[in-house]
Formats: sequence, structure tokens, C-alpha cells
Amino acid sequence: MSYSSKIIEEAVEAISRLPGIGRKSALRMVLHFVKQKEYDVDHLVTSIKKIKTDLKYCSTCFNLSDDTVCTICSNPSRKSNLICVVENVRDVIAIEETSQFYGKYHVLGGVISPIEGIGADDLRINELLQRIDKDDVKEVILGISPTIEGDTTIFYIARKMEALQVKVSMLSRGVAFGGELEYTDGLTLGRSLIERVPYNTVSQ
Amino acid sequence: MSYSSKIIEEAVEAISRLPGIGRKSALRMVLHFVKQKEYDVDHLVTSIKKIKTDLKYCSTCFNLSDDTVCTICSNPSRKSNLICVVENVRDVIAIEETSQFYGKYHVLGGVISPIEGIGADDLRINELLQRIDKDDVKEVILGISPTIEGDTTIFYIARKMEALQVKVSMLSRGVAFGGELEYTDGLTLGRSLIERVPYNTVSQ
Repeated sequence: MSYSSKIIEEAVEAISRLPGIGRKSALRMVLHFVKQKEYDVDHLVTSIKKIKTDLKYCSTCFNLSDDTVCTICSNPSRKSNLICVVENVRDVIAIEETSQFYGKYHVLGGVISPIEGIGADDLRINELLQRIDKDDVKEVILGISPTIEGDTTIFYIARKMEALQVKVSMLSRGVAFGGELEYTDGLTLGRSLIERVPYNTVSQ
Repeated sequence: MSYSSKIIEEAVEAISRLPGIGRKSALRMVLHFVKQKEYDVDHLVTSIKKIKTDLKYCSTCFNLSDDTVCTICSNPSRKSNLICVVENVRDVIAIEETSQFYGKYHVLGGVISPIEGIGADDLRINELLQRIDKDDVKEVILGISPTIEGDTTIFYIARKMEALQVKVSMLSRGVAFGGELEYTDGLTLGRSLIERVPYNTVSQ
């Protein structure tokens, strides 16, 4: 596109590199910045810069954090002996949204994926094992997505924990709330039949 | 959403105020920034800041420009006596994309819209009239969108130019290229019949 302005050209170029943003959306944002107050643009720019300068990984669970230890790990009302192992920060947010988990997290930083060249050593599995030992953890929930890579990772971590005195559990799998049986894939539907639960055990 | 980080919360809040960006996309961008190199984030931030500090309006046509006069107005190979009047900068870019216009532009900064409280005095119509006089303009093309507000604006400007020795034209209206007659609205189809052109007049 011909913008007749290098400033616009450069900004569109930089913004369109963001995930999910094309050149048209980028131009729309640039023209939005033109109209916006300088104060608001400064605020946006500062908050983006802070991500690079101030944000760190929690030294305990590797969640993104403002301080050395994140607000979840430093919360005394959350159980230290119950750990939910997740793939990434997005999954922490998704589980926090449910308000159903009162333990702490452990962010692996990915799943084992030979195609992407991610091996077990690239994940924070050793840190998890050390933590189980140190914090006298009673239960580890493997909150990892039920994909091929996810299942491989679950299998690997579960094997590693066999020797430890810790209960290992994983997320239940089955038909989703609001989902229609007709459109549920066979694997999920079959598993939800095999792992059926007695009526009334689930709080409705 | 609960991000357990004020830095993330603030950035998501600021980014989700951009047009077309929700909180989920904003979070995706924040996590993208976490992974991105500091150099790339700095480049993005600098290019956004430049929009507020360095970008100005061309003193002649009111297009966005890096200098006092934009690259289109200062281009000697473009006709100064042919002006295309447009609503905004996006329309300049759209017309430039066609490579069919070799004159110069005049950006009104909107269209007359009583609902939005935009009157003729809020647009750069007086500047257009002065320019027609000063640059000895031969033809003015009213390149304004054929909406109710657009047509009102076209009517208003055309009336204003009646006294001047200048040819006034507007964009042709009719069925779009690749459009199917079946799905073309009646108003457009009817008008394209009334204003039918002899076969072969249009360079195909």
C-alpha cells in the first residue's frame, strides 16, 4: 500500500507483525492513534514497555509475575501441597477464571513436542520434582491439554513421579457443558461412557 | 479476568481499547511481547510514539504527512489543477491504490452529519474554495462515499462551487466489478441502468 508517509508506513509494518493483525487493522490502529490524546498513547506505550522491563517469571512456579514470587505463590490462603501443572501462563489464567482451584501452579513452559524440537529437558520438570520434595506436596494435578503432545507430557511426568509419595491426578475428560452428543467426537464420547460417573456425585 | 500481575492487567486494559481488539487478543499480544526481543518491542513503541510526535497534516491538502507539505502535494509530476476531494486519509490510500489518479487531493476531515454534530464549518471546505482559486483548478472530483451524509456533502460542495469556473465531477455509481446483479441492491442497479454507458467507452 502507498501511504505517502514513512511514519505511517513504519508503524503499519511494526503493528502488522503482531499476532492476528493484518495491514488493514494496523492502519486502522495508526489512524486511531492520530485521533487519540497523546496521554492515552503514552499510557499504552509505557504499559507495553513495562512488559519487557518489569515483568519476570515467578521463581517458584514460573508464572509471569510483577515480583520475584507471584501473587498466587505468595498467597498464604492457597494450599502449597496441591500443585496444578500447566503448559503456559494462558492456562493459569483459564483455570483461575473457574475459581475452582485453591492450590498453586507449576508452569512447564510448553509440552514435549519432537516436531518442534522441545524435549523434556526444555521444560521445568526437574524444578517440579524438587518442589514436590521441598514443599511436601500431597497431590499433583496434571492440567495439561489432551492433545498428543499433552498426553505424552502427562505420561512422562507421571512416570517421573512414580517413585515419589504423591497422588497424581489429571483433568476429567468427557462431553463439554452445552455440547451436543451428536457433534462430540467419537473418542471423547467413548471415553465419557467408559469413565461414566454415578448420578449425583457431581455438584450441579 | 484474573492475571495475577498488575503489569499484564494494565497492558491488556490499554491494548484492548484499540479498535477491533478484545481482551483475549490483547492478552495474546502481551504474551507475544513477553517472547519478543526487546529490540522489536522498542521498535514498535518508537514507531507508535512517532505518530504523535512527528506526524502532521499537510498544510495544502490536509492529508497526513511527515513534512509540512505531503509527498503527493510536493510531487511536480502530479497535476495541481485536478483535485479529488475525499472524506479522510483512508480514502486517499484507497484511491492511491488504484493508480488511476494523477491529480492532488483535498481531505475534508469528515462529511456533513447532523447526527454526529458535524456541520459544513467543521470541514475544510473554505480551504478547498481558496485552493481552487489560488491554484487555478480546472476540475474537482468529489470522491466522497455515496451514503446519505456523503451525498449531502457532495450537494453542499457542488452548490458552493457553482459560482467558480471549475468543472465538478463525481465518482460513477453502478454495479461493482465481480458483483452479481442478483445481489446488487435495487437503487444501485436502477441507477446503473439509467446512467448506462455505450459499449467500448470504458477501457477494459
